[in-house]
Amino acid sequence: MTRKKRKIAVVAPGSRLTADVAASVQTLTAKLYSGRGAEIHFHPQCFESHGHFAGDDAARTQAFLEVANDDSYDAVWCARGGYGSCRVAEAVIRGLTDVARRKAYVGYSDAGTLLAGLYRAGFEAVAHGPMPADILREGGDAAVARALAWLVEAAPETLERTVGSVEKTAAFNITILSQLLGTPLQPDLEGHVLMLEEVSEAMYRIDRSLFHITSNAQIRKVAGIKLGRCDRIPPNEPDFGMTEEEVARYWCRRSGIPWLGRADIGHDIDNKVVPFGRVASGLYAAVGNSTGALIGRA
Amino acid sequence: MTRKKRKIAVVAPGSRLTADVAASVQTLTAKLYSGRGAEIHFHPQCFESHGHFAGDDAARTQAFLEVANDDSYDAVWCARGGYGSCRVAEAVIRGLTDVARRKAYVGYSDAGTLLAGLYRAGFEAVAHGPMPADILREGGDAAVARALAWLVEAAPETLERTVGSVEKTAAFNITILSQLLGTPLQPDLEGHVLMLEEVSEAMYRIDRSLFHITSNAQIRKVAGIKLGRCDRIPPNEPDFGMTEEEVARYWCRRSGIPWLGRADIGHDIDNKVVPFGRVASGLYAAVGNSTGALIGRA
Repeated sequence: MTRKKRKIAVVAPGSRLTADVAASVQTLTAKLYSGRGAEIHFHPQCFESHGHFAGDDAARTQAFLEVANDDSYDAVWCARGGYGSCRVAEAVIRGLTDVARRKAYVGYSDAGTLLAGLYRAGFEAVAHGPMPADILREGGDAAVARALAWLVEAAPETLERTVGSVEKTAAFNITILSQLLGTPLQPDLEGHVLMLEEVSEAMYRIDRSLFHITSNAQIRKVAGIKLGRCDRIPPNEPDFGMTEEEVARYWCRRSGIPWLGRADIGHDIDNKVVPFGRVASGLYAAVGNSTGALIGRA
Repeated sequence: MTRKKRKIAVVAPGSRLTADVAASVQTLTAKLYSGRGAEIHFHPQCFESHGHFAGDDAARTQAFLEVANDDSYDAVWCARGGYGSCRVAEAVIRGLTDVARRKAYVGYSDAGTLLAGLYRAGFEAVAHGPMPADILREGGDAAVARALAWLVEAAPETLERTVGSVEKTAAFNITILSQLLGTPLQPDLEGHVLMLEEVSEAMYRIDRSLFHITSNAQIRKVAGIKLGRCDRIPPNEPDFGMTEEEVARYWCRRSGIPWLGRADIGHDIDNKVVPFGRVASGLYAAVGNSTGALIGRA
């Protein structure tokens, strides 16, 4: 079976990437897809530096628009999280053309801010999933290979197990979702199974963010919440007295949002892919369509 | 001049207080107001402990309602911040009676969540100001004395310098305001000069919270933002590249909210009193009325 080579552009809407990370991802991609259809372009903006960010707001906006509006790319992959998407998301969304609507977008953590805005703007092929910088984790090749398998082949085994068994899904880092509520980037998540994960936040902050999220009238229309992993939680002084699951169950109970158990996502190498919206008609189909067919992973 | 002794009740809607802090505040109050009209009651709930909190949610709610709905108290003073107000604020506000409307409320930091809800519910005598736990700071007597001078005497020199020269004011910790946006506790701040302060948050978090706050449609109706002190900011890796004032000016410019300069508030001993709403018809009058007259500070 022959098919068009799938071209993926990497940009960094938040923090910068180092060249060695890009090289490692290129090596892995070549190993996994040599000669049979995946090519990655790391936009030079990934390596720019401007204070906290991978280039200033204009540079990050421009790079995203350049690749998203370029018909030769099939997908836009966020290089990493860190911080900075909220500064560029609105300008990016204003600048996107119809060409941009036909491609897939993957990222998580800080990049979730941008994915939220894209999904709100009606983009159908947006997914929460691993990013190039995950290759830095121990065993991180597995995470990057999973994102590639989604971006290149729409491989169904990359998906979080809930996806497909429910009508609609979405996934966010807890803090990131909290910080975009009420902004022009907040998407309509009515009827979605909402998966949430966290990293490096004290339990009292997780509790407070979940108060904020579950008190939001729009969020209360979700089909339910599934809690992903909450890792590297700094010690609470005094001990908080509840685990992250107890905290999430508490806020679900208080808000009337159905508690649906745990989700297989997190800031780790096991982080699964969660498309935004309906899988059949959404990202899965969009990725599948642009590769010509849904094909199995080799 | 004789007047009724002014009774102030202290409760802890968030984290717990230690008995020695209460004792120090009692000593200071006796020194400042001996025999002439101020009495402080520390509700035993202040010293309770339940995980992170000064007693469980029910205990904190109950204590607040007990003193707020008791006609013998003229004011309710939040013992300290920490974390926990968001868990009890809605139940507190549901349980308050007309008696509670006639008294003054003071606190800041985490307690701002509760003040927001009270102000939204139409309470006129709500103010951002020092709390008993501030006595632990070096020179903290000055902060506690300032709050007392407001609570006991409505002393005008306790007020942030902007108050009185503008129509309406409000003040919040940046993170606390961010985390109550879109919840049933968010007050209408249209036309208010909004003063914001922060402590112990990295610059990228301050930037993100200000994105969140200034992107909120209701917040965009404020008369302007004044930035209080942002202290003990942990180092940003890499250096953020902007100061807190540059960050605040940036988000004001982007959102169209007028930048009004710096405010004399913060997590420190110089933290001034900022009433919520109109001063003439609001807290200032409410405090003044219940003491019989606006009297000068001795």
